[in-house]
Formats: sequence, C-alpha cells, structure tokens
Amino acid sequence: MLQFGKIAIVGAGNVAYTLCKLLKGKEIEPFCVFVRDPEKAEKVRADLNVEVVSSYGKVLESDLTIIAVKDDAISEVASHLVDYKGFVVHTSGTKSSELLNKSMRYGVFYPLQTISKEREILFDEIPLLIYANSSEDLAKLHEFAELFSSKVYECDNKQRKAIHLSAVYVSNFTNVMLGIGDKLLKDNGLSLEIMKPLVMEMIEKSFELSPEKALTGPARRGDFATIAEHEKMLADNPDELAIYMILTDYIIEKYQKNEKL
Amino acid sequence: MLQFGKIAIVGAGNVAYTLCKLLKGKEIEPFCVFVRDPEKAEKVRADLNVEVVSSYGKVLESDLTIIAVKDDAISEVASHLVDYKGFVVHTSGTKSSELLNKSMRYGVFYPLQTISKEREILFDEIPLLIYANSSEDLAKLHEFAELFSSKVYECDNKQRKAIHLSAVYVSNFTNVMLGIGDKLLKDNGLSLEIMKPLVMEMIEKSFELSPEKALTGPARRGDFATIAEHEKMLADNPDELAIYMILTDYIIEKYQKNEKL
Repeated sequence: MLQFGKIAIVGAGNVAYTLCKLLKGKEIEPFCVFVRDPEKAEKVRADLNVEVVSSYGKVLESDLTIIAVKDDAISEVASHLVDYKGFVVHTSGTKSSELLNKSMRYGVFYPLQTISKEREILFDEIPLLIYANSSEDLAKLHEFAELFSSKVYECDNKQRKAIHLSAVYVSNFTNVMLGIGDKLLKDNGLSLEIMKPLVMEMIEKSFELSPEKALTGPARRGDFATIAEHEKMLADNPDELAIYMILTDYIIEKYQKNEKL
Repeated sequence: MLQFGKIAIVGAGNVAYTLCKLLKGKEIEPFCVFVRDPEKAEKVRADLNVEVVSSYGKVLESDLTIIAVKDDAISEVASHLVDYKGFVVHTSGTKSSELLNKSMRYGVFYPLQTISKEREILFDEIPLLIYANSSEDLAKLHEFAELFSSKVYECDNKQRKAIHLSAVYVSNFTNVMLGIGDKLLKDNGLSLEIMKPLVMEMIEKSFELSPEKALTGPARRGDFATIAEHEKMLADNPDELAIYMILTDYIIEKYQKNEKL
C-alpha cells in the first residue's frame, strides 16, 4: 500500500513533531529525522524516540524527504538535496514547489491548519493540499496523505497560494475582529465569552448557506443611525474606528452593487 | 415561580415568533400578541395558535409587554403605553431603555443572537442581556429570563451598547472576512468548505486562550516577503487590498507596541 519506503523528515518544529507522531501511530517508523541544532536534536530523540541525524548522508538514502522547516530555511535545506533520487516535498503554504527543483522529483505536502504542540487536533479532518511534478509521484503522495487525513486535495502552486491568502482573511483577520471585540468588552468590564454563541452561529450559518446570506447588522440593513452612534462610541479608538469605517463602507457598497444587478 | 402573570408580545418578526413558541413550549400561554398588519396577524394566528390583537386595549391589561419590533418602530409602540401599569421591555441591542420611559416600569430583554425563522437554534445557550429600572422588576425579569436560557446577564445601557458594537466586529465583520476568503477561493475554482477546520480551530483557540495568543500568520511574524506577495496577488481587487493593508498594519503596530511594554 504505502509507496514510499524510507521516510526522512527535516525539522524540529510543530509540523515535524506532529508528522513523526502520526507516522509512529500508524506503525511506520521514520527512517530518520534531520535536526541541525544539537540541543533540539537531543530533545526530538528523547521526546519521539526516533533516529535523529545532523548530516544529510542518511537523508539522501531515503525514498521520501519531508522538509518541515520555516519558509525561509527551505532553500538552504534544498541545497543539500542536489541530485537526490527520492521524492522531496516541503510543507509551506506560500513557497513555490519550484524551490525544490534541484531535485528531480519534488512536490508539496501542506497541512491547512494552525498546528501547535500544546493543542491536540484531529489531524484526520485537516485538509492536506498536495502537489507533485509528476503524475506518478502525485498518485503516491495522494495515497500517503490519505494515511493521515480524509481530506486530501490536489492543487497547483497558484491554487495553494490563493488558499494561503484566503486563510489570512478567514483565520488571521477574523482573529483580529475577535481581538477588537474582546478589547471593547474588557473596557466595559465584560468578557469575550458572552459572544461565543453568536460567533459560532454566524460561522455555521456562513458555511451552511454562504457568508453573504448569513450577513446581518447595521451596515447590511443600511441603519445609518446606529452606524453613526457606533462611530461616536469609537472616538477614543482611532485605529478600531478606521477599521469599522472601511468594513462598513465595504458592506454597504457591495450590497448596493448586488441589488443593482 | 413566574412573577409576571399575563404576557403580551408586540411584533410578528423572528424574535416575537421565537418567544411565543418558547413560552408555549413551557406551557405558558401568551396573553395576546399585537400585530398591526392584518395579513401578518392572520399568519401569526394560524402559525402559532395564539390570540392576536390589533388594538392596544388588551395589551394594556397585561403584566408584562415585550416589544419585539424593529428598532425604529419601538417609540411608536411605546407611545401607546403611556401610563401602562405593567412592566415593559424592548428586545433591542442598541436602543436605550429610556425610550420606554412613558411607562413607569421599563427595561430591556435582549437576546444576543442572530435569530432567523429558518434555522433552529438552542435558545437555552443564548445570552440574554437584561435590564430594569427597578431592582424589583430586575429580579422578576431575571427569573423570567432563566426560563429560556442558562446565560442571563444583567447589564446597563452602556454595557449593552458596548456588547452590540463588539458584536459588529466579532460577527458582522468576521463574516466579511469569510466572504472575502470565499471570493478569492472561487476565483481559483475552490470552495470555502476547505477552510472550515482552520477557522474552527482558530475560533476555539481564541476563546480558550485569547485572540492575541491565537493569532498567527505573516503580519504576526513580521513576514514582509509574504505580505508583499499577497499585496501583489490582490492588485485586481483594490477594496480587498485596502482591507488587507489596514488589518496587516494594525497587527504589526499592535504587536510592536506589546513587545515594547
């Protein structure tokens, strides 16, 4: 079934850790884990009970190398894999697969999720976005990815970059909105917790119907009296006010356009 | 237990419908439901099997009147309740309770949720924000509210308005972020569904730790190369680009400030 024999992992971060643990959970022993920093290497060895190496000799003997390092460090790792005979992937959402083209066979294995060591997540529901520069390796990588998740998507560099950009809005910027809400509540002796049912219902509704259909609020219904009152309430918070105004205008313009169609 | 004998509801919208159904579910028969529009009145009568009236005579005989109409219509309804002997509340997040001060006893009963007829929601987890202009009525209203929800919060006009403003960020503006993400994905032949695990994990993490601690992404880690690439990708979407830039700057400035402290 599993088409890649010896699996090397490069890195000691959250993704590298998680992949090692998941492989061992499937009774697949990583062939080796490359960690440059001696202290981190010792920790990985102790925590995960895997063979840890600090030179590339053994990595070059593997069939699949997963580069799970920070975006900026990928090309340095790739420079050690010139003429590598195996298949090499990185785990980045933004970097092009071409970064690895010093090897003949390369691709991407990108888990679309915030992975941290402190929080357990159900990896089998995480979308895995995969790519390979040959259809043969893509088929193998697909099978490999299905070991971990039921949601495997083949997508090219352009699509993966669009997904990463979209993630900035739906995850990072959504987080900023929760942060501003939190601040406004704290200023009035209240806690963000009170908002959870509202947020969850809006999110569920957005995924079930569509964000557009789930949208409510003063901007959506053109309630300019409430908007004016809100802007007055934000007088002491100029940054949050600027965000309020740009997003309110965005909603008003967008829905006016839609109604004209 | 229940301190208000006869309960009148004014309105034929989602909140009025939901309250009627919930009362009947608790085997409390609404004393009457006031609906001005004859067509809507007939529909409410048929749907909910309650006594529907179109003049205020019977409303004035009640012990509690819940005004569940649009914000702009509250004062018109209130003008019919001059010298009302019962306790009157509205269900608005933004309007001041003082709007009802033509009656002696007034307050607010605000369910913090998007309530629509098409979607069933677990009302017992919806925060109910209550206020009354006397401690006696507040105690009664608290007991009444606990019939519907385990999350009853007493809060004054200022707090309730802060909550409503916060809700614009955490619900409406968060929705806008999902909408932009959706658009960017659709432009690349992809569906928003792929984002659900990421969004849910970020939301859970934000409520569990705090939005600040849950924040990730290029702006958070000062990854200006990725930010520049994203801005280039958004060249054909000037409105979305402007939102990207203001929120990215907001994150960068905020975290620089925090690190200086």
